[in-house]
Amino acid sequence: MSARAGIVVTGTEVLTGRVQDLNGPWLADRLLELGVELAHITMCGDRRGDIEAQLRFLADEGVDLIITTGGLGPTADDMTVETVARFSGRKLVLDNRLEEKIADIVSRLMARFPDVDAEAIRAANRKQALIPEGADVIDPVGTAPGVVVPGAPTVVVLPGPPRELQPMWPLALQTAAVQKAIADRTVYRQEMVRMFGVPESGLADTLRDAEREVDDFERLEITTCLRRGELEVVTRYEPDAAQTYTELMGRLRDRHGDAVFSEDGSRVDDQVARLLRGRRIATAESCTGGLLAARLTDLAGSSAYVAGAVVAYANDAKSELLGVEPALIELHGAVSEPVAEAMADGALNRFGADTAVAITGIAGPGGGTAEKPVGTVCFSLKLADGTTVTRSMRMPGDRADIRERSTTVAMHLLRRALS
Amino acid sequence: MSARAGIVVTGTEVLTGRVQDLNGPWLADRLLELGVELAHITMCGDRRGDIEAQLRFLADEGVDLIITTGGLGPTADDMTVETVARFSGRKLVLDNRLEEKIADIVSRLMARFPDVDAEAIRAANRKQALIPEGADVIDPVGTAPGVVVPGAPTVVVLPGPPRELQPMWPLALQTAAVQKAIADRTVYRQEMVRMFGVPESGLADTLRDAEREVDDFERLEITTCLRRGELEVVTRYEPDAAQTYTELMGRLRDRHGDAVFSEDGSRVDDQVARLLRGRRIATAESCTGGLLAARLTDLAGSSAYVAGAVVAYANDAKSELLGVEPALIELHGAVSEPVAEAMADGALNRFGADTAVAITGIAGPGGGTAEKPVGTVCFSLKLADGTTVTRSMRMPGDRADIRERSTTVAMHLLRRALS
Repeated sequence: MSARAGIVVTGTEVLTGRVQDLNGPWLADRLLELGVELAHITMCGDRRGDIEAQLRFLADEGVDLIITTGGLGPTADDMTVETVARFSGRKLVLDNRLEEKIADIVSRLMARFPDVDAEAIRAANRKQALIPEGADVIDPVGTAPGVVVPGAPTVVVLPGPPRELQPMWPLALQTAAVQKAIADRTVYRQEMVRMFGVPESGLADTLRDAEREVDDFERLEITTCLRRGELEVVTRYEPDAAQTYTELMGRLRDRHGDAVFSEDGSRVDDQVARLLRGRRIATAESCTGGLLAARLTDLAGSSAYVAGAVVAYANDAKSELLGVEPALIELHGAVSEPVAEAMADGALNRFGADTAVAITGIAGPGGGTAEKPVGTVCFSLKLADGTTVTRSMRMPGDRADIRERSTTVAMHLLRRALS
Repeated sequence: MSARAGIVVTGTEVLTGRVQDLNGPWLADRLLELGVELAHITMCGDRRGDIEAQLRFLADEGVDLIITTGGLGPTADDMTVETVARFSGRKLVLDNRLEEKIADIVSRLMARFPDVDAEAIRAANRKQALIPEGADVIDPVGTAPGVVVPGAPTVVVLPGPPRELQPMWPLALQTAAVQKAIADRTVYRQEMVRMFGVPESGLADTLRDAEREVDDFERLEITTCLRRGELEVVTRYEPDAAQTYTELMGRLRDRHGDAVFSEDGSRVDDQVARLLRGRRIATAESCTGGLLAARLTDLAGSSAYVAGAVVAYANDAKSELLGVEPALIELHGAVSEPVAEAMADGALNRFGADTAVAITGIAGPGGGTAEKPVGTVCFSLKLADGTTVTRSMRMPGDRADIRERSTTVAMHLLRRALS
């Protein structure tokens, strides 16, 4: 048994990408928590025909619940309620209580604009008080009310602004119509594992073996995603398949134990922030141009442990600000392990830090050589106790990828050295 | 006459909102430029039935072109190509040239992972070389090839990672099948103006006046968008409405001449890069944590004019690395115009630069006071000839907004001082 849902996102500004849709992902999370399976999100512009086609598509696909967002305003291009009414074969009727309520809200808002035509406003809010016969009204948080239209599927109509939609959703959820629509939901568990330092194909190999060897493997719905140089493995399963998930995790740990760094959804950024508590870190960066420092200071409270950074893009800046001997650069080149180590020493000393990471590399597109092609990046991590970890890598991708992945490598060097 | 298109975004990670879809909006822009009307974007998880239902929905709605994104990887949850093949009634056939090409790419990538099973990789890339019979192949940018399947509608299958999809789209567009599918499009012109330092309501006012006073104003389709602290005004029109657009631009220049900084789509980043040619810049950053240096070095070739940066997060780092007198910090506070100026001086001196920008502020969420609330940011720009521009601002938004908008303000200070 299960309950399936679809989301219809309306609005030309969202369809054309000028405004990012935040409602789809937010509602997706709420449905996931409820154990309602989200089958489709569809987006279209402010056109009756397209909105109705999407409603019909979702109904044909047999979803139990449709949630629409947007198109509830007073202007002519707001047409979701009338379209849903037609789709569900209901007349629009004026809700007198609602009309008064909206008039009250609008008159307070309009107090700031004495020149606006009062009759135009009354006409506009009369439109917003027309609801499909027999529907439940969700009182407005802004000026636009929502409605819940019972049926198969039940349709929940919510406004587009997230700060209105989000408080209205729990009220919609309480209606008898929505409760009935999602009665057959299954509660799922969802777990996320993050890995670093294993290729996607290596993981695919492990999953193929698990599919053959682990009982009930098909009860796990596994999705993998490569992001910022890390692999995310999300597994969704019904509670009684927990043993199967435990077996999968055992295999992941056996095969890729070094690579699995998070089993609880935490990001490497959070882990490193925790490990840096009570420490004082400085970075010395060349090709990343300050991205590592920016990433470390992205988290609130980072001023407690981040001293600062030197971005030494020019060679003389490496010498002047980090004390790297010009002769060392001359001998090994600016992109070399000895220079990375000297940069880390410089960061430790200049900032009076106890933890330092240095990055020097060739982000491209120019500057590569046969010996040190674009993507060559040297890292050095140093701690005040003398611990030194130095690595050279060849990063794939373009300039932006090389720079971003280099910060990810540095975060994992920190995580390992401080754990 | 017109051509209509639909986009099918696949991937459980995108449907559930764990990964933000960037391809829908990007492709929406490309279609808009081409004059192809985008009717629907649909999103679903990695499930054959749901993907096929969406393809069929779009075909039933009569679109001429479908673009799918995602689901081309080597793992079992990647199933777009086989689903499109079934949808279009074509067999999957192995493309030998493609198999070799992918094997070649993968073997270079895998050089870093000597322990991975070579046979597993061969199996995975064989799957990626299976294409619908008669389809055009779009060679991979990453490891996943795309395909164009001719028909009514024609289906373009592209990979999910934007850095792969974006360079592959122009190749798909050149195929005879896509050209035929979009033959009936209407050609529009599209122009973008960027403004900085004018509120959205001021622009709205100007547009309302223009609506009353400019002939044929309704032939311009204008959308405005506030992004990264800048206002973008995009206008779309048929070529014979060019005179109307010229009149609109005249009004924008008259009313907001200082604010209009780009009429050709160029970004402030490109303009600053051009202005910095032959110069040597250093930054001194506190609350932005290196984001300004990272933004300046984001562009290829920036090593010609970026010397480096000091991120002085801790107060003692401001003194130690930038020579800011501790007494000055004591007297005015770290977030103050005198300290910003001293930081800029320090950046000029320490890096031997001729151009310096310093930023010190309170990004929050903690650290604000009644006198200097969260969002207070001081900027100082100094040139070797003694030019000094110092500003204090109150930035809206959360920590990430304040940090990002501060870099935008700094870019515009640079643009104005160097123009």
